[in-house]
Amino acid sequence: MSRFLSSRFSALTPYTPGEQPTDMKYVKLNTNESPFPPSDKVLAAVNTEEVKRLNLYPDPTGKALIKKLAEAYDVGEENVFISNGSDDILNFSFMAFCDKDKGAVFPEISYGFYEVYAQLYGIDYKKIPLNNDFSVNPADYYGVGKTVVIANPNAPTGLALSVAEVEEILKANPDDLVIIDEAYVDFGAESCVPLTGRYNNLIVVMTYSKSRSLAGGRLGFAIAHKDLISDLNTIKYSTNPYNINRLTMAAGIASLEDAEYYKACNKNTAEVREYTKAELKARGFDMTDSKANFLFAASDKIGGEEYYLALKAKGVLVRHFKNEKIKNYVRITVGTKEQMDILLQQTDEILAEVK
Amino acid sequence: MSRFLSSRFSALTPYTPGEQPTDMKYVKLNTNESPFPPSDKVLAAVNTEEVKRLNLYPDPTGKALIKKLAEAYDVGEENVFISNGSDDILNFSFMAFCDKDKGAVFPEISYGFYEVYAQLYGIDYKKIPLNNDFSVNPADYYGVGKTVVIANPNAPTGLALSVAEVEEILKANPDDLVIIDEAYVDFGAESCVPLTGRYNNLIVVMTYSKSRSLAGGRLGFAIAHKDLISDLNTIKYSTNPYNINRLTMAAGIASLEDAEYYKACNKNTAEVREYTKAELKARGFDMTDSKANFLFAASDKIGGEEYYLALKAKGVLVRHFKNEKIKNYVRITVGTKEQMDILLQQTDEILAEVK
Repeated sequence: MSRFLSSRFSALTPYTPGEQPTDMKYVKLNTNESPFPPSDKVLAAVNTEEVKRLNLYPDPTGKALIKKLAEAYDVGEENVFISNGSDDILNFSFMAFCDKDKGAVFPEISYGFYEVYAQLYGIDYKKIPLNNDFSVNPADYYGVGKTVVIANPNAPTGLALSVAEVEEILKANPDDLVIIDEAYVDFGAESCVPLTGRYNNLIVVMTYSKSRSLAGGRLGFAIAHKDLISDLNTIKYSTNPYNINRLTMAAGIASLEDAEYYKACNKNTAEVREYTKAELKARGFDMTDSKANFLFAASDKIGGEEYYLALKAKGVLVRHFKNEKIKNYVRITVGTKEQMDILLQQTDEILAEVK
Repeated sequence: MSRFLSSRFSALTPYTPGEQPTDMKYVKLNTNESPFPPSDKVLAAVNTEEVKRLNLYPDPTGKALIKKLAEAYDVGEENVFISNGSDDILNFSFMAFCDKDKGAVFPEISYGFYEVYAQLYGIDYKKIPLNNDFSVNPADYYGVGKTVVIANPNAPTGLALSVAEVEEILKANPDDLVIIDEAYVDFGAESCVPLTGRYNNLIVVMTYSKSRSLAGGRLGFAIAHKDLISDLNTIKYSTNPYNINRLTMAAGIASLEDAEYYKACNKNTAEVREYTKAELKARGFDMTDSKANFLFAASDKIGGEEYYLALKAKGVLVRHFKNEKIKNYVRITVGTKEQMDILLQQTDEILAEVK
């Protein structure tokens, strides 16, 4: 820390991204990436002619991409916001819609970045405990008088609320904003986008990183009432208007033209998830009913950290969180069936050793 | 504006990027882009194999790119910060190093975004008038008790301070941070990077957008004492850690391996700038001694806005600013000699009509 850093950040603990070790080649199941490459149309769109035009700024309004997203989600162009990944949009949302007078609430166990944003902006925030089965209790979010932020499906549990349950939260907070983070929605949960037409206190945040195989491209979007989109643009145009790469803009458009490919990839991921879940259950693991592209699993024979470290030693990377309430669990990204079979085989070896 | 936007942003005026009209094909001299494509090594580095890996997150630490930048600028890796364009770094800098107790000063006529950042974060700021010839008077920045932000060369004037003049500002503000924005330094001004080894109150901000033909890629970097770099990383890891695209990371590395190409491009731009300047002077224009990749020019026969509109009608796009003190001027990006000859020819036609 330098002597110039504002004192308001002196106690800030930044987010810790999933590890990216380079000491050996891992089966990488720790950052919820898609195991599938971008579609052929994306490969065709990001070509040498496009790279040659990188001397020119991208269109800061992202008009062409927004048009395509509006068509794909059946909303107006004025209802779509695009930015550099969904983290960027969550950051803008905490900045725009929370302050010293308006706090935030989010589940105690959820995406770790929510708390970082709340701390970054000095927001009064409250973490609401999950039910004992790790599910979110919608009623806990009724009339809280603060901005509500819920990942749906939630991370790292994978558990999802129904659209009807989210609608009850919206109805119970007519004067507060509800942000639904749908980063993992395309693997089997219900999207709340249809509610954005009826509730002007709802922002649905989505990403290309998981279900569209574009984590390396940095593209997220939000769908909401036009006034909320306008506010997000106010923040974007006051920080970094050109934040989406030209090539990513092209990839984002091409992805929407290959919807069937991604649908098939996501279906495969859901199937491999259920297969792996059944296999781990058969080995005595406690599993949530994950609707995301990851599993949340605790062994009855080995602690979470011990299991994570043993897998890592065997070349399989999963994610472990130190939080007391979930320390027995690991989060396992759903890769290809081949990758999951390696995970299962290494798990068998590990469990055999602890017996 | 929605009813949820924090009241601290209700009077915020976002930055206005240069226009990107699509009604016709323009000779685009309004956003200071390079007229040259990225180098062959960049074209080779951003290939289909890399696009296929877009399903994976970029390395958030950007280790490989930082190593190359440290070598290129002869500093330690701990002295280099990378992010999504220099706007991103300026944003982080205002956020990290200014607050209600620590204001900012910058030239009255300069990059318009400084004032937006100051407003965004509710910072007490002061705009310091330029000399009558549009130059920055270093002594005006001595002992100001605030964070000093200076674009060098300055925009839209193109005028540069010497390293010795910047050093005097550093010496006169030992307890305040000095941010030197060197977006345009590679076209003929002196870089202050060598001072970062001796002054721990200096951040030099640079970009790939202009002198490395990568405006569409979104890549900026900063060089400073390691504690300042650490602070910038604290903010980055608390907002959007993965903000540099995988392809941009590859392009950024490849660019540094083709330094001779960019040197030749920038030399050409400086030569075409001097040629165009002489030609416009011969037509009665008042010109600053720009060291950047743009010219700042006022005709004795036609007002700035009138000239800008007349050029636009003839298919040549330059930038005009409404600020009273510079309203007679336009900022003209230096393109290829062919583009500048079109500008000159259209200027001749315009001037002939006003006579």
